[in-house]
Amino acid sequence: MKAYVSSAGFTSIGDHWDDSLLDLAVEAARKALKSNPGLKPQQIFVGNMFSSVGASQEHLGALLASALGLEGTPAMKVEAACASGASAFNVAYSLVKGGSLDSALVVGVEKMRDLEPEQVSQALAMAESAEYTQFVGATFAALNGLLARLYMERMNVTRDELSALPVLDHSNAVTAEHAQFRKAISPEVVARSTMIADPLRLFDCAPVGDGAAAVVVAGEKESSRSKKGLVEVLGGKVATTEFSVYERKDMLRFKATEDAFKGAMSAAGVPMSKLDFAELHDAFSVVGALSLEAMGLSKKGAGAKDTKEGRFNLNSDLSVNTFGGLKARGHPVGATGIYQIAEAYLQLTGGAGKNQVEGAEFGATQNIGGVDTTSAVHVFGRSG
Amino acid sequence: MKAYVSSAGFTSIGDHWDDSLLDLAVEAARKALKSNPGLKPQQIFVGNMFSSVGASQEHLGALLASALGLEGTPAMKVEAACASGASAFNVAYSLVKGGSLDSALVVGVEKMRDLEPEQVSQALAMAESAEYTQFVGATFAALNGLLARLYMERMNVTRDELSALPVLDHSNAVTAEHAQFRKAISPEVVARSTMIADPLRLFDCAPVGDGAAAVVVAGEKESSRSKKGLVEVLGGKVATTEFSVYERKDMLRFKATEDAFKGAMSAAGVPMSKLDFAELHDAFSVVGALSLEAMGLSKKGAGAKDTKEGRFNLNSDLSVNTFGGLKARGHPVGATGIYQIAEAYLQLTGGAGKNQVEGAEFGATQNIGGVDTTSAVHVFGRSG
Repeated sequence: MKAYVSSAGFTSIGDHWDDSLLDLAVEAARKALKSNPGLKPQQIFVGNMFSSVGASQEHLGALLASALGLEGTPAMKVEAACASGASAFNVAYSLVKGGSLDSALVVGVEKMRDLEPEQVSQALAMAESAEYTQFVGATFAALNGLLARLYMERMNVTRDELSALPVLDHSNAVTAEHAQFRKAISPEVVARSTMIADPLRLFDCAPVGDGAAAVVVAGEKESSRSKKGLVEVLGGKVATTEFSVYERKDMLRFKATEDAFKGAMSAAGVPMSKLDFAELHDAFSVVGALSLEAMGLSKKGAGAKDTKEGRFNLNSDLSVNTFGGLKARGHPVGATGIYQIAEAYLQLTGGAGKNQVEGAEFGATQNIGGVDTTSAVHVFGRSG
Repeated sequence: MKAYVSSAGFTSIGDHWDDSLLDLAVEAARKALKSNPGLKPQQIFVGNMFSSVGASQEHLGALLASALGLEGTPAMKVEAACASGASAFNVAYSLVKGGSLDSALVVGVEKMRDLEPEQVSQALAMAESAEYTQFVGATFAALNGLLARLYMERMNVTRDELSALPVLDHSNAVTAEHAQFRKAISPEVVARSTMIADPLRLFDCAPVGDGAAAVVVAGEKESSRSKKGLVEVLGGKVATTEFSVYERKDMLRFKATEDAFKGAMSAAGVPMSKLDFAELHDAFSVVGALSLEAMGLSKKGAGAKDTKEGRFNLNSDLSVNTFGGLKARGHPVGATGIYQIAEAYLQLTGGAGKNQVEGAEFGATQNIGGVDTTSAVHVFGRSG
């Protein structure tokens, strides 16, 4: 069966001091459901990483179902670290595609700002091994700092090349209403920002923010009610690889993304040249560059250089992070994968406003957990 | 397509001071995979509730995949409080049934004993609303204490009637090698045990323990490799209801279980009279009694009385909690649903040893999250 995204809804990303985790999830879900009048999702999936630590709350599936007045509906949370959102989507999509479900509501949500900065680092570190990585005190910024150092040395990448993706992200986010940071920056701003984990600086790193995003996935019949148009889910794949980056023979190879992208594109039957945009999981600038290379959108070692040359600007052959990516749109962990899918929905229904990729027909989203330990890629196509 | 449980593996339940959360999950998974030589599961689902709080570890899917040498395999965690195990199973089963997957490994795991008792109460309370139930300090024992008081008064249930299920559980667990408490008890022992939340006493409540259980779910072709026999998954349903028990008009009605059981049985096409055994989620004695009533196995108000009359003893018309249920086999939260399914597998392949239900053809498992907020029921049948 064909599976469609038939609507999307989301909150702005940033500080939501007056909203609880549940408030945010409800807001996003209601917006998505509103564009599908009469649709009662057959199942609810919530993507979230650390509501336990952040809000002393689990059981988000049933909690959200009840808050939406959808009690009775089967509901559960899906977690795969920062790839929780797209992993939840993947389950829903697979069940609709296989004909087991007619429709599902997928909500990604994370509340990070209620935590102190060091608590956020600890919460994120749960994506890595407690017995090894956490034990030695390595945070995600530290691991990615090592990766960036290796990448720059091995591939002759300059500071300005590494800064190109954050600069592009911020440029695209200026006109993205839901983005956390809507201010353009220059490579100099990146280069002079506070050192976080040498060589990564503040503007190499995705910010900490609260947010929730929701999409409805449905088959042909149920999706026909949509008021905002349909986007077909052409393919999707989740892949994993050796758990910790330092265990891998080639640390600069993002094998999970390689496999997930290959699998999703082949299921979609879309040649790479047809992709109009890609939403990358650039939690750190170096992760964005290595993701471009893993997906074959840049040659090995050329991800950062290509970005600096303007190859991925809005309305280049391939537009990347059209609403600002993780760096500028924001990265509310468990919600990020759903924000990306919601953005793909906007692009392919012509609803992206000033961020519209002209004539966009095909797009891909890539959502990572850990240092590319889990990668979930989905490919979408304009419908009708 | 038909879907089968083609193997099961589990650890004993209790104190595992020398094993980490991951160690337990690996042990159970290896045992399950060993009975399916050559099978490489296409996806891994981990049922777990609070590894974040208990072990500072998330991303269990990829962590387990990597530890098993199955890196590459799509993997994710599914959470629905104490119903995490059966919810994870439900996703895997639905994907195999719908033909999206040929095989999946489902592992439930929880490590509870590393926490102090009050931390366990707090962790379990995350199944309830942080903003209401937790805020007023109501623990699960407290909520179930209120429910037990109401049940006893409204339905004229005596102390000894309420004790009947714990007594039956302990009796069945004596010969169950993996059970946490293998000692028979009398109603007097229950009645004289420490008060936990009036009228619930220590022996009304499931214990705190570590454990992991795993099953392989597969289609016809992949399951044919099984060395221990096949059990067909005839039907399954997850249902939710109004989130908190105190919001419900009739607190003694377990509506989620009612819906999930009805749905699963109707999908299975098995008349109730054909059920040979049921594995109940008796986290508290009162929950077991109300579950029997919600499933229609006892009349309203008669669950505890029927149990006392011996109607659910091993090898009665319907055997209940054949290996000791949550009270005596144990209740390592996120693993419990998979232990129940593993036990159904043993019963229907003739592998239950001294706990064998003679000639068992059909059995059901019921796994609850919250006070019957989420309920996941599956129905299994002997194959061949």
